[in-house]
Amino acid sequence: MFNVEYINPFIAATLQALEVMAQVRPKRGSPFLKTEHVSKGDISGVIGLAGEAVGSVAITFSESLAKKIYAKMVGEEAGSLDENVRDAVGEIANMIAGGAKATLSQHGHSFKIAIPSIVVGKNHTIEHKGTGPCLVVPFELEGETFWIEVSFQGAAGAG
Amino acid sequence: MFNVEYINPFIAATLQALEVMAQVRPKRGSPFLKTEHVSKGDISGVIGLAGEAVGSVAITFSESLAKKIYAKMVGEEAGSLDENVRDAVGEIANMIAGGAKATLSQHGHSFKIAIPSIVVGKNHTIEHKGTGPCLVVPFELEGETFWIEVSFQGAAGAG
Repeated sequence: MFNVEYINPFIAATLQALEVMAQVRPKRGSPFLKTEHVSKGDISGVIGLAGEAVGSVAITFSESLAKKIYAKMVGEEAGSLDENVRDAVGEIANMIAGGAKATLSQHGHSFKIAIPSIVVGKNHTIEHKGTGPCLVVPFELEGETFWIEVSFQGAAGAG
Repeated sequence: MFNVEYINPFIAATLQALEVMAQVRPKRGSPFLKTEHVSKGDISGVIGLAGEAVGSVAITFSESLAKKIYAKMVGEEAGSLDENVRDAVGEIANMIAGGAKATLSQHGHSFKIAIPSIVVGKNHTIEHKGTGPCLVVPFELEGETFWIEVSFQGAAGAG
């Protein structure tokens, strides 16, 4: 089973990343188990976690929401999901993984962070192929929904 | 700069994964630097690498080629990019990362492998956001092209 305690550090890191980078405060919804890959989006940041604990985390936005967040970050509108917007999504993914790592490592779940990959494509889906389940957390912001999806297998024996 | 020696273990592992799993022998093309994210596809396996060395590798297929490879693997046609096909792409990504890890670790590039993420979406693109460049290798199979994309930063001081 997915230990639900694993998800909280990812939620906290997501809120913090968006607050620090874009001065926005999304409203988090309830986590649910991903039994089919339903969270479609237009741009995602995906980042692998590997060590004694392993996993993967993805954050997925619609094109319009990604552009809104980018505009809040830099004070400039983006016309498309250009390199600047993609870089911004990569930074957000990095901050989420880094923030979660800081908390989880204090509980004995040691891992390192791979480099982020940015997926762009209308209505794409992402599915993590770990041996355990995947949790999805919806967030509301500016009248839209974005998601994080986390698959995480903690270090054996860690608290 | 990307050390081109890093790419060969990924190429060899790709050829081996497809030979072992689907008894097919793709023809590899020449690696090139990814200066814009041009390799569009319909299904990708993405897998993070993290440790003293860090990186990310993705393999991207068209829907028709993914189904053809799946049919070779299991002797059964797939009607869509269903869970079985997605699992197969995840296994291929795992084998590529695992094969490359075996070779690279012999040269002092130590890392662990995150869990694979499967992206599904018509004509999506994937871009790795490492500090170094990304190499793309095209392969020809059954009259179609698929790609691997590798961003890899070796362990400092390793050979």
